[in-house]
Amino acid sequence: MGFSVKLMNDVSDGVKGKRNLITDVAGVKVGQVTIDQDDVHSGVTAIVPHPGNVFRHKVPAASCVINGFGKSVGLVQIDELGTIETPIVLTNTFAVGTAINALTKQMLAQNPEIGDTTSTVNPIVMECNDGDVSNIRKMAISEQNVTDALTAAGQTFDEGAVGGGRGMMCYDLKGGIGSSSRIVTVDEKHQYTVGALVMTNYGYLTDFIVNGAPVGAPLAKMLAEDKKKEEKGSIITILATDAPLNSRQLKRMAKRATVGINRTGGYIGNGSGEIVLAFSTANQVAHFEQTEFDTVTRFNDNQIDLFFRATAAVVDESVLSSMIHAESVVDRKGRLRLNLVDACKKLSSQHSEYTEMLEKALSQLGVTL
Amino acid sequence: MGFSVKLMNDVSDGVKGKRNLITDVAGVKVGQVTIDQDDVHSGVTAIVPHPGNVFRHKVPAASCVINGFGKSVGLVQIDELGTIETPIVLTNTFAVGTAINALTKQMLAQNPEIGDTTSTVNPIVMECNDGDVSNIRKMAISEQNVTDALTAAGQTFDEGAVGGGRGMMCYDLKGGIGSSSRIVTVDEKHQYTVGALVMTNYGYLTDFIVNGAPVGAPLAKMLAEDKKKEEKGSIITILATDAPLNSRQLKRMAKRATVGINRTGGYIGNGSGEIVLAFSTANQVAHFEQTEFDTVTRFNDNQIDLFFRATAAVVDESVLSSMIHAESVVDRKGRLRLNLVDACKKLSSQHSEYTEMLEKALSQLGVTL
Amino acid sequence: MGFSVKLMNDVSDGVKGKRNLITDVAGVKVGQVTIDQDDVHSGVTAIVPHPGNVFRHKVPAASCVINGFGKSVGLVQIDELGTIETPIVLTNTFAVGTAINALTKQMLAQNPEIGDTTSTVNPIVMECNDGDVSNIRKMAISEQNVTDALTAAGQTFDEGAVGGGRGMMCYDLKGGIGSSSRIVTVDEKHQYTVGALVMTNYGYLTDFIVNGAPVGAPLAKMLAEDKKKEEKGSIITILATDAPLNSRQLKRMAKRATVGINRTGGYIGNGSGEIVLAFSTANQVAHFEQTEFDTVTRFNDNQIDLFFRATAAVVDESVLSSMIHAESVVDRKGRLRLNLVDACKKLSSQHSEYTEMLEKALSQLGVTL
Amino acid sequence: MGFSVKLMNDVSDGVKGKRNLITDVAGVKVGQVTIDQDDVHSGVTAIVPHPGNVFRHKVPAASCVINGFGKSVGLVQIDELGTIETPIVLTNTFAVGTAINALTKQMLAQNPEIGDTTSTVNPIVMECNDGDVSNIRKMAISEQNVTDALTAAGQTFDEGAVGGGRGMMCYDLKGGIGSSSRIVTVDEKHQYTVGALVMTNYGYLTDFIVNGAPVGAPLAKMLAEDKKKEEKGSIITILATDAPLNSRQLKRMAKRATVGINRTGGYIGNGSGEIVLAFSTANQVAHFEQTEFDTVTRFNDNQIDLFFRATAAVVDESVLSSMIHAESVVDRKGRLRLNLVDACKKLSSQHSEYTEMLEKALSQLGVTL
Repeated sequence: MGFSVKLMNDVSDGVKGKRNLITDVAGVKVGQVTIDQDDVHSGVTAIVPHPGNVFRHKVPAASCVINGFGKSVGLVQIDELGTIETPIVLTNTFAVGTAINALTKQMLAQNPEIGDTTSTVNPIVMECNDGDVSNIRKMAISEQNVTDALTAAGQTFDEGAVGGGRGMMCYDLKGGIGSSSRIVTVDEKHQYTVGALVMTNYGYLTDFIVNGAPVGAPLAKMLAEDKKKEEKGSIITILATDAPLNSRQLKRMAKRATVGINRTGGYIGNGSGEIVLAFSTANQVAHFEQTEFDTVTRFNDNQIDLFFRATAAVVDESVLSSMIHAESVVDRKGRLRLNLVDACKKLSSQHSEYTEMLEKALSQLGVTL
Repeated sequence: MGFSVKLMNDVSDGVKGKRNLITDVAGVKVGQVTIDQDDVHSGVTAIVPHPGNVFRHKVPAASCVINGFGKSVGLVQIDELGTIETPIVLTNTFAVGTAINALTKQMLAQNPEIGDTTSTVNPIVMECNDGDVSNIRKMAISEQNVTDALTAAGQTFDEGAVGGGRGMMCYDLKGGIGSSSRIVTVDEKHQYTVGALVMTNYGYLTDFIVNGAPVGAPLAKMLAEDKKKEEKGSIITILATDAPLNSRQLKRMAKRATVGINRTGGYIGNGSGEIVLAFSTANQVAHFEQTEFDTVTRFNDNQIDLFFRATAAVVDESVLSSMIHAESVVDRKGRLRLNLVDACKKLSSQHSEYTEMLEKALSQLGVTL
Repeated sequence: MGFSVKLMNDVSDGVKGKRNLITDVAGVKVGQVTIDQDDVHSGVTAIVPHPGNVFRHKVPAASCVINGFGKSVGLVQIDELGTIETPIVLTNTFAVGTAINALTKQMLAQNPEIGDTTSTVNPIVMECNDGDVSNIRKMAISEQNVTDALTAAGQTFDEGAVGGGRGMMCYDLKGGIGSSSRIVTVDEKHQYTVGALVMTNYGYLTDFIVNGAPVGAPLAKMLAEDKKKEEKGSIITILATDAPLNSRQLKRMAKRATVGINRTGGYIGNGSGEIVLAFSTANQVAHFEQTEFDTVTRFNDNQIDLFFRATAAVVDESVLSSMIHAESVVDRKGRLRLNLVDACKKLSSQHSEYTEMLEKALSQLGVTL
Repeated sequence: MGFSVKLMNDVSDGVKGKRNLITDVAGVKVGQVTIDQDDVHSGVTAIVPHPGNVFRHKVPAASCVINGFGKSVGLVQIDELGTIETPIVLTNTFAVGTAINALTKQMLAQNPEIGDTTSTVNPIVMECNDGDVSNIRKMAISEQNVTDALTAAGQTFDEGAVGGGRGMMCYDLKGGIGSSSRIVTVDEKHQYTVGALVMTNYGYLTDFIVNGAPVGAPLAKMLAEDKKKEEKGSIITILATDAPLNSRQLKRMAKRATVGINRTGGYIGNGSGEIVLAFSTANQVAHFEQTEFDTVTRFNDNQIDLFFRATAAVVDESVLSSMIHAESVVDRKGRLRLNLVDACKKLSSQHSEYTEMLEKALSQLGVTL
């Protein structure tokens, strides 16, 4: 989905994929489970890299730890081998152990060789702390929730306060899951897609800007009671492409996510675990290969800026998309946590002097006050 | 325990701690649970950095990924913040999720603020694949096992085929848990301890040497049926010290573990996840500090070689100690997996031409043929 | 100098140092030599961390390689030991060897022990490619130029097309040296300064935005003949503080420079070597220490966001400051390379429809159309 | 050359290349210049990756910093882009600047586009501190020396106290340049070569062992006057192969050099800059490519142990080869710095009780007492 309008100051060519979702990358699917029960507002978002057996057909991948105040698992092996061999699960911090178990069991069921005649498997689980909104101490996510998210994976999916993003707050407003995509045209014969999916839980409202407009400051003043003392957020970014980028190139691409993350006023806060995972569906690596050698297409770095630009753009749009698609949510303490539009409406009704700025800013995101 | 004799070619001063265990570092405790049920031969080894509340009083720490074919969790945050805030759990690869859950629950119970009024917590779980010996696919380790290991932590503990090391194989012989320590004398006023605990599951028997003697080759020939096609091992190394080393210095120390690991014939195999975690009990970091500033002792790097030498020595001795303390074990397929001494006895009885070399090699480890 | 006005959307407290220069950090000095001879438009900018003997009194330091398409030297040892032991020299890519020689000779002259009775020394030289403007192939910078810059070091210095920045282009407009500072108040008793000095040579004009206003796009259209095919730029960022941050914390701070760099439309281009060096004048490390131990103040990470915010702000302002202070320069091929104001004037005179946007944007930078 | 005998405890298949030199990798050439003038005992060793224009046809490469107490240059860009684009120059620490200048000038002469119509170039210079033997403060290496070494490059070259290794000491005995190679057979159709060239300047004599025999301890006792207080050494390792390993795989290979380095008693001392550079002559990357895509052979990691084993072996043999080929040298203070054989002879003549051990150890290196 992303925006219904053009992203302003888009550093890419600005050509969006069909769905404007990470699933525009052929084969990629996303499934989600949302939990909203008593004081638990959490969930699971699963990204499946391709329709086949991911363990047997690994995909080139790389991670980038922008700020390592986080508990994501699986990165050590990605760094060493340059591949991922399971779907990726996004959830809350205290569901990581359970998600590992669920992912492992699924992989074991699909691959009787694992842990018997071949190696083990490296589950990828990434997280943010939704404890501000949800009672994270209950450790309420079950293995079944994770399995259900994996099973639900499809080409369309909701953004906003859903799945792993259910309890996440972005710039102190309701955040969650956002996604966007861009078409990258290298030459007439080579056209690729770059897609992002983010789980947003970072940023201070005071700092929030929309294309330079200081929208956040008056909102923060109005919502003073919700001002965080300390950044305890995080943002997880998943990047997918069908371009034949190898793990070194994917790491380079992953590093550019920070551009999109900070366009809205972020500064990589101390407590914000900002971790990026990028993978390519091209040049897959067979676990049980027929031969030690295969032949692959290599993309030279000379035109890699096309992918860096697309990355900055899709992450920027995904962050804002998570905010415009998120509904306002009642948190674990019964407080209503406003989304961007609702907060702007409230501010506009109280302080009409901001109405023009807010209207303009929202319209740039394709929504109305 | 380590050896009852001196380590040959010890690059340190050779002065061992009282117990010659990692627990010679004041405050450090180790607890273990061993599972031996049907075809499951596995367990848990827990290292507790100090007797207090580890979340509230974090210890400076660093990790070193020698070879990242592994699934250890918690390293991202250690790299960023330079501290650990939970005990360390060592277990099998498919028990990582469960260990995270158990550790998290213990931390939640001890700290009602976590996930409510303060941040979450970063559990440290490290693993090797014991699937060669144990039915790892059963995912048999329970949260209770992990909690029991934590509770059992004390100053003395067993080495060999126990705890997380129950199912581990080192150089194709029975390995497991090994430990050793050295006293480091910087000057008359400053004496410290460096201790190691390893979980050994790496190496090819063909390559195994004892102080240069090619003990492994004839053993490998004899045990031909057990020859691994592919390294699927790993070695986890925990280093502890009471010296005031900061996270940068601990990372430097952690890097030297590789010296001890490879003295016996290792070459850092592709499939061998070799991960080191080093921590200091000095200069602890308060979670809820009274002030933003405190005063700490800083050790200059000029004499840090003393600690590097001690590290090489304790890891070398710990690896071999895991082998001489491990009993032979019947594996998940009913095969008897010999320990070093039993294998040497068998070889000596079949090929007396090796008896002299074996006797000498074993005597250097303080054991007899 | 930086701006004469407030930085818009400043994520810091916005309190600038006395000079609004990196030299607001007590003891830090900057010296420059500018070369403008025939087709050579280049120079040297030297940053001296403190007035004493830097080899004998090293300062805690860290580097961050945002994008490693660059030839800066000295980073390997900084990463290992967490200190710098020489002044920092900024110059063009092909002057690096000469700068190393000059710096080394100065250190040898000041320290007769180096290379004789004690270790060698690790010169820090950082660079951008000014080959677009200057005939870099002439390798025209001399050792004397470097020595002169070091000798010239003082508390005030020029910004813009001077020193190492003489031939640098930022967003295809004239760039060069920029600097700014912020006061960080941790509590009543603890006030520190964070200063930045940048050498800007990166970015595409099309992407250039000023607080969200797409100023660059119409400028790029107008200056079509100068459009670069390929990013061959770079940006070097030096951060200084008197706060007692250790090398791990300085690395964290260095990572935040990217926020300031990209606020104006950067996306970390493939060819843009973006390298950051941060140092603290506090807790210096004696080369010839009296004892292996000393006592230092440690700052907890809990309030480190204050420094991250200051970093984002000073780098943002420094980048733009390099642009507003740079004069237009005739390049090696005789082309006039416009600075921002001149380019805006030209555009405004040709296309009055942009005048309002340009006026507003420039006024936010404290300059007028 | 390496040894005339088999390397003991060789973890590789033990099949040496034709010359047992790094130049067994087709296309690789080595040239050296040795300076022996007054108190200067130094030089230059240049490794040329292939006979073509290295800037136009870059080779995949990676570095590994085992211990970063060193001043090697060029690594930042290798890490980012995974290629090298110049020959590699090895020399003394204070000749780095001059070597950069000489290398740059050669590249400029060969490539008129550099710094004009295309990017700059990234010179690779690596160093050890030979200040113990040579008057390094004189900065006596000239650009001509570097150019001469590059020009002299051929398939055969001397080992020992020559080239960059002229003034280097290994385990307090005369060291310098050593080299060795192994043939790696992946399958009937795929046979490759792995070669190493080391410049050895590390280690303490006390720690020196030959296949476990503590040869160094009595030698150190005898040569007590030469005992270093502090490790100020370093070892540079260059690895070459014609196997199609990419930069990620080359980095993995480079990490295994430490195994060979430490087999003789090293422990990665604080002051020992241990840096490894690995490159492959396969899958070269064109600077001016015809198309953004090419087709390359990819080697799966499953059998990469073959290369890791070869790496450990060639580095081990190269280190010892540097010692057995080095002549004894009179140092800058007029002291005779013994090589291994001369030191052993002296010890044997004074203490016949060591004769047997020394004879055996030397015979394992293919030399006689």
